[in-house]
Amino acid sequence: MIRIGIMGYGNLGRGIECAIKQNDDLELVAVFTRRDPATVSILTEGAAVCNVKDVEDWKDKIDVLMLCGGSATDLPVQTPEYAKLFNVVDSFDTHARIPEHFANVDKAAKEYGHVGIISVGWDPGMFSLNRMYANAILPEGKDYTFWGKGVSQGHSDAIRRVEGVKDGKQYTIPVEAALEAVRNGEDPELTTRQKHTRECFVVLEEGADAKKVEEEIKTMPNYFSDYDTTVHFISQEELDRDHSKIPHGGFVLRSGCTGWEKENKHIIEYSLKLDSNPEFTSSVLVAYARAAYKLSKEGQSGCKTVFDIAPAYLSAKSGDELRASLL
Amino acid sequence: MIRIGIMGYGNLGRGIECAIKQNDDLELVAVFTRRDPATVSILTEGAAVCNVKDVEDWKDKIDVLMLCGGSATDLPVQTPEYAKLFNVVDSFDTHARIPEHFANVDKAAKEYGHVGIISVGWDPGMFSLNRMYANAILPEGKDYTFWGKGVSQGHSDAIRRVEGVKDGKQYTIPVEAALEAVRNGEDPELTTRQKHTRECFVVLEEGADAKKVEEEIKTMPNYFSDYDTTVHFISQEELDRDHSKIPHGGFVLRSGCTGWEKENKHIIEYSLKLDSNPEFTSSVLVAYARAAYKLSKEGQSGCKTVFDIAPAYLSAKSGDELRASLL
Repeated sequence: MIRIGIMGYGNLGRGIECAIKQNDDLELVAVFTRRDPATVSILTEGAAVCNVKDVEDWKDKIDVLMLCGGSATDLPVQTPEYAKLFNVVDSFDTHARIPEHFANVDKAAKEYGHVGIISVGWDPGMFSLNRMYANAILPEGKDYTFWGKGVSQGHSDAIRRVEGVKDGKQYTIPVEAALEAVRNGEDPELTTRQKHTRECFVVLEEGADAKKVEEEIKTMPNYFSDYDTTVHFISQEELDRDHSKIPHGGFVLRSGCTGWEKENKHIIEYSLKLDSNPEFTSSVLVAYARAAYKLSKEGQSGCKTVFDIAPAYLSAKSGDELRASLL
Repeated sequence: MIRIGIMGYGNLGRGIECAIKQNDDLELVAVFTRRDPATVSILTEGAAVCNVKDVEDWKDKIDVLMLCGGSATDLPVQTPEYAKLFNVVDSFDTHARIPEHFANVDKAAKEYGHVGIISVGWDPGMFSLNRMYANAILPEGKDYTFWGKGVSQGHSDAIRRVEGVKDGKQYTIPVEAALEAVRNGEDPELTTRQKHTRECFVVLEEGADAKKVEEEIKTMPNYFSDYDTTVHFISQEELDRDHSKIPHGGFVLRSGCTGWEKENKHIIEYSLKLDSNPEFTSSVLVAYARAAYKLSKEGQSGCKTVFDIAPAYLSAKSGDELRASLL
């Protein structure tokens, strides 16, 4: 059994707990929280709930520690720090800061002889893998990534910061016509506005000016001003009833050509349709926890990403089983 | 420069030649043929055309030999044999015989210190990879593979063996309603007939009985009797004009659930739409030739499949570049 620890018990931590239950070779041994452990109840019988400050006591009782903090402030500190004590896996998703994060984790992990796998999930993660494979196969071509339909946490937060907004949820929606143009091999040049639309469901504070709220959302720089945005005003009941889930997904496409005169066209498409963004992300993290364990057992150390890990490491099946059943 | 040799100059060999041209770090040095080399003209200036029997002379002048023979009789012999002299890559696609082929290639490659990568292409190959990743991420779920729309060489050959048929081409077509049911998360149980239809374009011999030919095709066991098959009779001119390309493609889907009570559903879909089946297959082979070279340089040996190779080995880019641009 591979013994797993979870650092942080939010949506992602709970998702990891659920994913572990689906994998017979994995076992949740402890959840670490900044809160008072007595106030945190988890689903797994027999697993401990501990305060973060006691994590070092678990050094020899956990094979892989899953880091479920945020990319803005938690993971840049936590991942290099805990890589000194454990094999670790994180979902660091600030694309621009990945090289720096990689270097920090690599240094700590190598020094202490652990494996640290960063930026695991679906983007970065499975989407990155598909971009990479497709680029290696079709070196001459164009990449497209579309996100949605799904809830953007960042945009939902932005809505909720607008004066007069009590609650709200934002969906990112890929433009079907743009997707179709890519699938048809038209290699379109697409502006931000042509790729995605944004749909907002907003609950107003008592007495708030709907017109003004709508205007403020639609013109918000970075978040909405470059998009065609629709704002729907609904009641808190409707929001709770119809928009409580966290679905997401998206599409990665590469359109490329082959042939002596580049006469043949090919489209590679990968897509995800997810009822629960955090649970799917967790499922990817858990598969890479298995990889971290196996790599560590082989004596490897240092920072890795999805690019550096042979697919077979993710599976509980042996090489023989994989070749016989899935090749 | 990675020096590539091509064994066999048919559709696949020519595809590899074209793919090499698109990769700056690869160089075609020689093509080997069973024919008289004087009768074989290739596209690449500066590359040699040699008879198969002289391949041993190239032992130190080729880094990776690409084996382009057929899976029925060529590759089971060639891949283990040439793995004694070279790093090799093949597209062995007889799924049921992969374990045996793997064992044979592994033995030879290990003994002679080479890397042999087998069953590379899109199925087996990229489809296998996607089945494997999706199974590792969503352990509870169902797999679906649909092929087409595309030309099946085996079924086209079968048509041409029917008495009264002068020429013919067969397209395998996925049933759109079945695909949609899978995408909708309905987890359908699908019979052979419900997954694919078969469409045949047939040129009759002078005086042949169309009714009889159609009947014989539609009732042919293994090939057509389990499918809804359409037969169109056309002229040789029409066949040559409208059906000379070798397009193919298909869809790999996994539908799985997550959550403590399995309450959330996820669909992972990978699809290919290919103008030229052999050229796309070649492009995958060439990316894995790069991997074979890198693995060999690291001192590795033995037989590998797409499951055993970390994605980064396929790319000409460095780890730093990959993390900065594609993660």
